[in-house]
Amino acid sequence: MPELRHDPLQKLWVIISTERGQRPMDMKKLEEFPEHEFCPFCAGNENATPAELYAVRPEGTLPNSPGWELRVVPNKYPALRIEGELDRRGRGIYDQMNGIGAHEVIIESPDHDLHLADMSIAHLARLFSVYQRRILDLSQDRRFKYVLLFKNHGLSAGASLVHSHTQIVATPVTPRTIAIELEVARQHHQLKERCIFCDIIQQELLEGSRLVSQGDEFVVLAPYASRFPFELAIYPRQHHYDFASAPENVIQALAVTLKDILSRMRIGLENPPFNCVLHTAPNIHHEPRRSNYWDTLVYDFHWHLELFPRLTRVAGFEWGSGYYINTTAPEDAARFLREIQIGYDK
Amino acid sequence: MPELRHDPLQKLWVIISTERGQRPMDMKKLEEFPEHEFCPFCAGNENATPAELYAVRPEGTLPNSPGWELRVVPNKYPALRIEGELDRRGRGIYDQMNGIGAHEVIIESPDHDLHLADMSIAHLARLFSVYQRRILDLSQDRRFKYVLLFKNHGLSAGASLVHSHTQIVATPVTPRTIAIELEVARQHHQLKERCIFCDIIQQELLEGSRLVSQGDEFVVLAPYASRFPFELAIYPRQHHYDFASAPENVIQALAVTLKDILSRMRIGLENPPFNCVLHTAPNIHHEPRRSNYWDTLVYDFHWHLELFPRLTRVAGFEWGSGYYINTTAPEDAARFLREIQIGYDK
Repeated sequence: MPELRHDPLQKLWVIISTERGQRPMDMKKLEEFPEHEFCPFCAGNENATPAELYAVRPEGTLPNSPGWELRVVPNKYPALRIEGELDRRGRGIYDQMNGIGAHEVIIESPDHDLHLADMSIAHLARLFSVYQRRILDLSQDRRFKYVLLFKNHGLSAGASLVHSHTQIVATPVTPRTIAIELEVARQHHQLKERCIFCDIIQQELLEGSRLVSQGDEFVVLAPYASRFPFELAIYPRQHHYDFASAPENVIQALAVTLKDILSRMRIGLENPPFNCVLHTAPNIHHEPRRSNYWDTLVYDFHWHLELFPRLTRVAGFEWGSGYYINTTAPEDAARFLREIQIGYDK
Repeated sequence: MPELRHDPLQKLWVIISTERGQRPMDMKKLEEFPEHEFCPFCAGNENATPAELYAVRPEGTLPNSPGWELRVVPNKYPALRIEGELDRRGRGIYDQMNGIGAHEVIIESPDHDLHLADMSIAHLARLFSVYQRRILDLSQDRRFKYVLLFKNHGLSAGASLVHSHTQIVATPVTPRTIAIELEVARQHHQLKERCIFCDIIQQELLEGSRLVSQGDEFVVLAPYASRFPFELAIYPRQHHYDFASAPENVIQALAVTLKDILSRMRIGLENPPFNCVLHTAPNIHHEPRRSNYWDTLVYDFHWHLELFPRLTRVAGFEWGSGYYINTTAPEDAARFLREIQIGYDK
């Protein structure tokens, strides 16, 4: 019998319908990148990107020259533009804003084929510090309400280049997904004086069936109302609203956790395309005249990562309803990923 | 300069960023179905589906035998099950329900390769009457709050079979997208004593730039904050909340309108994969003890169809933010589709 499950964070229903997973055509292999020609993210091709904003590179090497380990550049095809003042206006019944924002790319390594799961823990920790640095920098800009960090891996996950990279988009509006979670967290806190994310983590630790891994700092779980097969959430155990100010030991532990999970996912699901999204609190601008409604909700938030392989297609049902049909029970996904043997040296 | 536009109906922001459309990789051709073997929807293969619930067939022919023009069957791999009573329960912090609902397939013609755009207007009108009949029937079931009708055309739009068909899912919860539109319509009506959809239609008729076609009964437009390139909305001009009770002349006009639009889309966008979704009011069950909050909002609704080709991929930005980046301005999409010359006899 299928089951409907309510996602308490996103306030939506998911149909967990495992029999439907037996359909022919489902969970098929998704398409590969075409044979590669020129890659603007490779070492030696630094001139093919806009000038770098930041890089981890040995002293003495010049910006936009080889030798770097990590490199941050503006997106060559930005969705939003950094120059100008915000201009909000009505247009009859509609509302518009000019497209002010930032769109950056973090090139995760100079190596064209290196998968995130194959990077060393030290390198991953450096990558996450670069995430923090860029988010902190962009969050100072008073035009931006939010800094969204995400990763598309593989063509069907929406990547346009195979070379591993992360994107950052700073927006003049708070994203809807974050706004919903902020309100849910506020309502829960008003009623119970507790964090809803902390409550979820506690229930998951007690139940155990949806846990994939747990360490001193992080818990990885297949969410109760997972929208997609093998969807995962990575939560810091300590309540903290802001990824950008997470201390070094937490960043280090995140590197260990993510390498482990990505390795399991790659082995178990045969190197699937995936998306990864950071959920962190919105920017706080301590200036009363410019105060943002969402500012007041920041401290009830609990930052986390969402990670999901793209194994199935979103179709009319999902677009029409805003709900999801998931053919893999999160309990089965968690068990499957727990049981994977990973081969690298921790 | 990109532009942020707010969708007043779904309460979300869309980034209209046309420069980004110049990226390599974008708007590529999406994958085709693999070579076909056996089709359970073809005439002669009636035994490959569950027994038919309804069919348009000549008098004297037997159910589940050839000769039909239109055929409705239960989905062989239903997302929800029709048998049983609803059982709602809490599970710690979570909420669940057993997966009661209905999942039906409307096989639109016996012909394996017939595209919706190539069906006669008389046949399309019959198809829409079958939609009405099935929605009316399912909406009587007091376990169901909503009857969702949608169509997936092509592999990348989520179809698992090439043979043209429509799906119906009756759900024990009101879909989120509908709930948002119902609340928006209610708020607008409380403030202005007018329908927000009617106001939008009026503004679009005045502005003209996003209109694709208009007739006595229907207006087709590229929505102001289109999430996808070439997204379209089809609105009846007369305020009416309920598709299932639309009169025959409206159904007839819808057939003419949809054939025209699908033909334009197929010629102009080279037979793209697409999704089509009906937005109609939730079921009303006039029984006070079982009354549904959404019941009270029904009459402010204005039914319509959403139609969008699947030319681009949804990636980390969309999943992370709940907002969208659209590389084709709706004004350009509308102009492009308006200018297509269609070859068939109206």
